[in-house]
Amino acid sequence: MRLAALISGGKDSMVALHKAAEKHKIVCLVGVIPENPDSYMFHTYNLHLLDAISSCLQMPIFKISTPGVKEIEVEDLQIQLELLRIDGIVIGGIESKYQRNRFKKVCENLDIELIAPLWHMDVIDLMEEVIREYNAIIVSVSAMGLDERFLGRKVDDKVLSELKTLNEIYGVHIAGEGGEYETLVLDAPLFRKEIIITNSRILWRGDSGNFEVTDFKLEEK
Amino acid sequence: MRLAALISGGKDSMVALHKAAEKHKIVCLVGVIPENPDSYMFHTYNLHLLDAISSCLQMPIFKISTPGVKEIEVEDLQIQLELLRIDGIVIGGIESKYQRNRFKKVCENLDIELIAPLWHMDVIDLMEEVIREYNAIIVSVSAMGLDERFLGRKVDDKVLSELKTLNEIYGVHIAGEGGEYETLVLDAPLFRKEIIITNSRILWRGDSGNFEVTDFKLEEK
Repeated sequence: MRLAALISGGKDSMVALHKAAEKHKIVCLVGVIPENPDSYMFHTYNLHLLDAISSCLQMPIFKISTPGVKEIEVEDLQIQLELLRIDGIVIGGIESKYQRNRFKKVCENLDIELIAPLWHMDVIDLMEEVIREYNAIIVSVSAMGLDERFLGRKVDDKVLSELKTLNEIYGVHIAGEGGEYETLVLDAPLFRKEIIITNSRILWRGDSGNFEVTDFKLEEK
Repeated sequence: MRLAALISGGKDSMVALHKAAEKHKIVCLVGVIPENPDSYMFHTYNLHLLDAISSCLQMPIFKISTPGVKEIEVEDLQIQLELLRIDGIVIGGIESKYQRNRFKKVCENLDIELIAPLWHMDVIDLMEEVIREYNAIIVSVSAMGLDERFLGRKVDDKVLSELKTLNEIYGVHIAGEGGEYETLVLDAPLFRKEIIITNSRILWRGDSGNFEVTDFKLEEK
């Protein structure tokens, strides 16, 4: 099948893409241009990095525009995905039924397949795979126990061990699926180039924060 | 017809989109992610602003990745455009036969239409239309007589008058089709929001330069 892979720039959607690519052809990426909360939207969300990832994967990216709501509506998603000649879409969801059901509906309406390779995967196995095969850094945190020190850190054994502790104490989802933290993939097995961050800054607001990539380059691997 | 409009962020492709939209439905935008000349690629080319324009127009954007050459190859363009369910593409060319012929070939191969609403349009008429109906600023210059003072300036009657003089003295193309200057459209008739630049910087190198938008916001009109 010829699939479009939804990507956020984070680890889950990237691992899902790689797993789907073992059996199918990924013909393009799909990203969502978020709402405009303030003047920093395009920076805070590291949105330009989706273009960099598209360049690293040598795959075109289709970016869907939202009419002003944070969560893109099923109907808008459907109208826009209908423009693509694809047999299905790949998503990175692990346990979120809400997200999965929305995409399921869109796929049913468009008569295409929904591929969710991480669905019900063991989160420790997932994290270990990320640590072993990807270079992913934490770019946002918003949960008890996840402080500024986590921002910009590579997801490695030490981070996983700390996340396990925070899971026991505060119930933080180990893969961050509840939005506790977000990651950015700088390198992955299918990347032809990798992203090298050359400048960044941390924005901290009360009990949450972002790691903003202000300059980067792509390097041949 | 359902068309995809190629956009660079500049005035010509935006005017072409608007003219095509009078007779057809523009269903998406197409942008090219350029090669990686240095770490500033995504900034220098104001690439993130294509996402902002997509948001202002409330149209999805399909970004094509190049495998490392500055000019995207016909074959790559074709493979990627084939993913879209469209009846044709809109381009902004005025006189460039090279660009037009490349796209013509791709369209013939894909059996879709090539719409070039500005083809052989009088450049003074075009410039006056831009001045009257659009807010376009100059974001790069690289020609005799076009110095740093042009960067960031709105294309208005005074700029047009200076371009006419430079055309007489040095043969600078009045609409900049030879790459003498490039523009960025901040507002256009079909924009639902406009781009407000909140921070910028000028990069000057010898005899050419760029106006880099470092921060901006989208405002309801």
